[in-house]
Amino acid sequence: MKKFLDKNFILETKTAEKLYHDHAAKMPIIDYHCHLPPEDIASDRKFENLTKIWLDGDHYKWRAMRTNGVDEHYITGAADDFEKFQKWAETVPYTMRNPLYHWTHMELQRPFGIHDILNGKSAGSIYEKCTALLREDEFSCRGLLNQFEVKIVCTTDDPVDSLEHHKAIRNSGFDVKVLPTFRPDKAMAVEDPGRFNKYIDRLGEVSNIDISDFNRLIDAIRSRHDFFSEMGGKLSDHGLEQIYAENFYDREVKSIFDKIRGGTALTQDEILKFKSAMLIHFGIMDYEKGWTQQFHLGALRNNSSRMVKKLGPDTGFDSIGDFEMARPISRFLDKLDSENQLAKTILYNLNPRDNYLIGTMIGNFNDGSIPGKINFGTGWWFLDQKEGMEMQMNALSNLGLLSRFLGMLTDSRSFLSFPRHDYFRRILCNLLGKDVERGELPNDLDWLGQMVENISYYNAKEFFKF
Amino acid sequence: MKKFLDKNFILETKTAEKLYHDHAAKMPIIDYHCHLPPEDIASDRKFENLTKIWLDGDHYKWRAMRTNGVDEHYITGAADDFEKFQKWAETVPYTMRNPLYHWTHMELQRPFGIHDILNGKSAGSIYEKCTALLREDEFSCRGLLNQFEVKIVCTTDDPVDSLEHHKAIRNSGFDVKVLPTFRPDKAMAVEDPGRFNKYIDRLGEVSNIDISDFNRLIDAIRSRHDFFSEMGGKLSDHGLEQIYAENFYDREVKSIFDKIRGGTALTQDEILKFKSAMLIHFGIMDYEKGWTQQFHLGALRNNSSRMVKKLGPDTGFDSIGDFEMARPISRFLDKLDSENQLAKTILYNLNPRDNYLIGTMIGNFNDGSIPGKINFGTGWWFLDQKEGMEMQMNALSNLGLLSRFLGMLTDSRSFLSFPRHDYFRRILCNLLGKDVERGELPNDLDWLGQMVENISYYNAKEFFKF
Amino acid sequence: MKKFLDKNFILETKTAEKLYHDHAAKMPIIDYHCHLPPEDIASDRKFENLTKIWLDGDHYKWRAMRTNGVDEHYITGAADDFEKFQKWAETVPYTMRNPLYHWTHMELQRPFGIHDILNGKSAGSIYEKCTALLREDEFSCRGLLNQFEVKIVCTTDDPVDSLEHHKAIRNSGFDVKVLPTFRPDKAMAVEDPGRFNKYIDRLGEVSNIDISDFNRLIDAIRSRHDFFSEMGGKLSDHGLEQIYAENFYDREVKSIFDKIRGGTALTQDEILKFKSAMLIHFGIMDYEKGWTQQFHLGALRNNSSRMVKKLGPDTGFDSIGDFEMARPISRFLDKLDSENQLAKTILYNLNPRDNYLIGTMIGNFNDGSIPGKINFGTGWWFLDQKEGMEMQMNALSNLGLLSRFLGMLTDSRSFLSFPRHDYFRRILCNLLGKDVERGELPNDLDWLGQMVENISYYNAKEFFKF
Repeated sequence: MKKFLDKNFILETKTAEKLYHDHAAKMPIIDYHCHLPPEDIASDRKFENLTKIWLDGDHYKWRAMRTNGVDEHYITGAADDFEKFQKWAETVPYTMRNPLYHWTHMELQRPFGIHDILNGKSAGSIYEKCTALLREDEFSCRGLLNQFEVKIVCTTDDPVDSLEHHKAIRNSGFDVKVLPTFRPDKAMAVEDPGRFNKYIDRLGEVSNIDISDFNRLIDAIRSRHDFFSEMGGKLSDHGLEQIYAENFYDREVKSIFDKIRGGTALTQDEILKFKSAMLIHFGIMDYEKGWTQQFHLGALRNNSSRMVKKLGPDTGFDSIGDFEMARPISRFLDKLDSENQLAKTILYNLNPRDNYLIGTMIGNFNDGSIPGKINFGTGWWFLDQKEGMEMQMNALSNLGLLSRFLGMLTDSRSFLSFPRHDYFRRILCNLLGKDVERGELPNDLDWLGQMVENISYYNAKEFFKF
Repeated sequence: MKKFLDKNFILETKTAEKLYHDHAAKMPIIDYHCHLPPEDIASDRKFENLTKIWLDGDHYKWRAMRTNGVDEHYITGAADDFEKFQKWAETVPYTMRNPLYHWTHMELQRPFGIHDILNGKSAGSIYEKCTALLREDEFSCRGLLNQFEVKIVCTTDDPVDSLEHHKAIRNSGFDVKVLPTFRPDKAMAVEDPGRFNKYIDRLGEVSNIDISDFNRLIDAIRSRHDFFSEMGGKLSDHGLEQIYAENFYDREVKSIFDKIRGGTALTQDEILKFKSAMLIHFGIMDYEKGWTQQFHLGALRNNSSRMVKKLGPDTGFDSIGDFEMARPISRFLDKLDSENQLAKTILYNLNPRDNYLIGTMIGNFNDGSIPGKINFGTGWWFLDQKEGMEMQMNALSNLGLLSRFLGMLTDSRSFLSFPRHDYFRRILCNLLGKDVERGELPNDLDWLGQMVENISYYNAKEFFKF
Repeated sequence: MKKFLDKNFILETKTAEKLYHDHAAKMPIIDYHCHLPPEDIASDRKFENLTKIWLDGDHYKWRAMRTNGVDEHYITGAADDFEKFQKWAETVPYTMRNPLYHWTHMELQRPFGIHDILNGKSAGSIYEKCTALLREDEFSCRGLLNQFEVKIVCTTDDPVDSLEHHKAIRNSGFDVKVLPTFRPDKAMAVEDPGRFNKYIDRLGEVSNIDISDFNRLIDAIRSRHDFFSEMGGKLSDHGLEQIYAENFYDREVKSIFDKIRGGTALTQDEILKFKSAMLIHFGIMDYEKGWTQQFHLGALRNNSSRMVKKLGPDTGFDSIGDFEMARPISRFLDKLDSENQLAKTILYNLNPRDNYLIGTMIGNFNDGSIPGKINFGTGWWFLDQKEGMEMQMNALSNLGLLSRFLGMLTDSRSFLSFPRHDYFRRILCNLLGKDVERGELPNDLDWLGQMVENISYYNAKEFFKF
């Protein structure tokens, strides 16, 4: 019997151990998609206690606590920080077989050096120990990024963002690159004219462009895209239920824009046309700058209107949807490809039933111009766990080239989530190790070691041209 | 090599053996969803022979026989009971890798004590031996329930049912609780006005309410709901292709009801609105009484109209459908949740492509009020086999809390199906055992043993408040 | 550690080894669905070099090369044959974990007897060695079919095909049966009136029937169906996004046909009705002759219009779609079944999310008339790899009868693809072997060995009545 979470955690074969320890473990981290707050890095925030850095804003943990029957008072309510931690600690044993159980103990091991099991009894001592460590310099936001050997972080930012924190970080000489990602979801959120118009007004201000018509809207967006590029940005990102790829005429889109700017709500048809047009425009900008466009597809968000009214979005009330994928994605990529305007692209799906579909869709538009031009994004959100990552890597392997995979990212709001890169690398090495030992891959550790290093680090470095 | 179906069947590790033998095997059974005929328990029926108890009405076996080229004469036709059994026995070797092969031999072992392999040659002796045993008192319906240590059985009943057999069982002092489940599918089957109106008339009679309009319909249904509750009922159940969650106004639903009561067929739109309204009303009743509502979603039934015309429904011509799941379920649960009227709920999906979707959907409405308030039902029907149960438990583990799982039920029409609880428990222990021995769970057998006992028995006992 | 691709490749247990070596390996091959060019067999073509036989037309390899960043010049462009091979060889190490990696080295082992690993360095010597062998008589098309012990090949042919090559092969006394398969996709491709009418004109010529109305169209098609039957044909095949099963009246279909023959484009509704009608007519013809109808469902083809314009269809720009499956398939099979006109049928799905759906759909129409009348086709195209075949076989096992499975086919355009039968058989034996050694199947090697032989060979031989 193997000890829980020892140094060969997840690694079931000698080959896997070698691939991991000799190759994967040595690689630094490029976290090319996450939601870390740049202001925390700019100010090099230190967290007051373990609850602040570990539970605040962590809707994964909140969901588990609610499912375990914990009252909202101890989750997002008025309970004090230790009370909240105590309730979380009591929940932890109930999360066995959930990735939270692994993440929790991996994060206690690194950076905190704690090998105890977290539960109701150990809560107090662990809380104290971690809270004390959080006062040390190695546990500030920058300290943590350094401890985890993070080289590049790509945050997720709205086009209207001033990127002042990114500037401050750059000017401070901090040696981790913190780059913005262009996420213009709000620029196509035309379901609510009031909110949309307010957003467009703000966009006009920050870009110093009078957005009098659709062309000027695109000008304004492009000026922000330029600005993100000046600030080192190399990626865009879109969070959508599904791709919108309706046919549209420019004049239609112009009058749709005029209509909503006049305060009139759009029809469903107009909404789809507008979004379809915006996606094409965003895609062209990305292509022109050699950026990579990312699509996070398939989340059904804000399901409990009662709780979302109370707590806002991203608080643990989202789930996996079942939207049509193949035809819209194909039409969209084909439109750009037909005009030779298809940027490097990463597709992330949230419903694993679509793994095989995405695994083949990327092959339709890989045209030999660069390796892995259209890439299948790693297991996202609910899929960011062992089974989910194995399903994604198996689909990618069987239908495309695992060797060209861009690998892991945290997608996280927390400075403690970097062990997930380690988790991913162990899972990758384990898959390869089993294949070798079963005689399904040749025992060529040089090649496989290089492949592991590429997927862990070099592929992303090359691909994004950081 | 392990012997087929020995005492450590399915258990691949020492840890799994311990979890099973020291914990799972000791637990009694709560079969909270099945289709056992209450009249057979009331009369403590003894079955004439093995065909009567094992083949009659067993559409799983019928399907396998048809696929194997057996003529209908030997399945539902005029062949005599032993001829039918002989044909089934000859089919058994062809079912290797189908759950029928395991179920068959598990059921021969327990309760019959037969360790032989069933095939064309052994058919005669096995038939005789079992038929002889079926005359013993331990093999009557009540004898079998006792042998299997069943504590509670929830049958599936129509609101118009008199529950006379449930009464008789209760009055007889039989110590197994046999409780009714409220399954009002026919009260929303408005596709066929003639049949629907006949049903509503009958409902009016048994409830002694003049169903003159929609409000009186709800009154009548509520009076039956009350009656089921008096009879110990704690659950409702709905068998639907998908959830209906259209918006509706009360006055619309009233006039839709008036229209169909006048004998006029409804439009598709009206049908959906009516069903959507009924589901909300059923849900509110369940909430008010602290019941649990169950939804069995995704079956496409009665596919062969030729055979269904001949044999009726539930004769082996049903299959897995591909219906939209996420948005309707979300809308429905949200409507109830928004009004604080969401009852405890179990969602069963028939298409395993929706496992991950359901595994996340339950998290949207788990609000901390009780553990596992919205639960992911165990592998149903075609999914009630090793791969299906593993997929469901892995999805639940990765996306929610396995520890709060309500566990197994037979969904069966047969008094011999209880070994499926044993099958389920072995599979559960095997999953946990492998995780422990691979170092993916701590070797904490006290906690894991308790978890196994909870999923096998205590979670259901607590949750349903039997 | 097991050696890569040794004689026990894929076989993880002793039982698997026995089942494979004593049973599976001995069976000849029936390749009942492929795309081999009959003219090459008729002329007993010898291939000039390894590129000609291995890379020309192999869109699997092309896709991998494009994904690996290889320029089209070296794929379908003007580069010379060795340059193309060199680029492929350099790509091979990047395909690890893709079935191409296994196929490549299995095909080098057999028929070429090469046990080296293909990569950029070994490219030259392997190319030379294979090219030399390709001049030997055992490496002509017929030589290869004999080497692989192929007994029957079913090609895929258009109804207007003269089958002259099939005739020539038959007349030549070649002892491998090369039979045509009736694939009338173009006879229902009514999206493009111009192309459709040209096709119908051609159909009129070859059948010598004046196709003046819909009834005469059916006459013409039936005359070709008769001709294919005379030539030994026993199967039809249809490649469709999904089944079309709309209701239609004969007079409607007649006027739809008149309309398109008049050169007018059809509405979407008319297109669906026409296709629905054609599928019924095809199905009846198959039923009347005791043929088997095959449906390949779910491909989304020609996604990159830029590349398809350049290279035509079947060049590597297809993918898995997400179409509705259950209701249309059910309606279609039920229509034929209701009239007692349902032929033997094989359903192949391309999206593995539908495996369970198909695994249950076949059961709805298996009526005992012959074993496995409705069969679940083996992992097709993107699913023709270890994970894909295991998923299909597990679904089939759990939901139907694996023992009645018709087994493998190559679906290939290449004379070197027959080792995929071997791959399939190893995977099958491995699944069974693991079950036996885990005690989940009895250790009855006689029965299981027979089952392996049946799935490898005898089931197809019996079923198709070759």
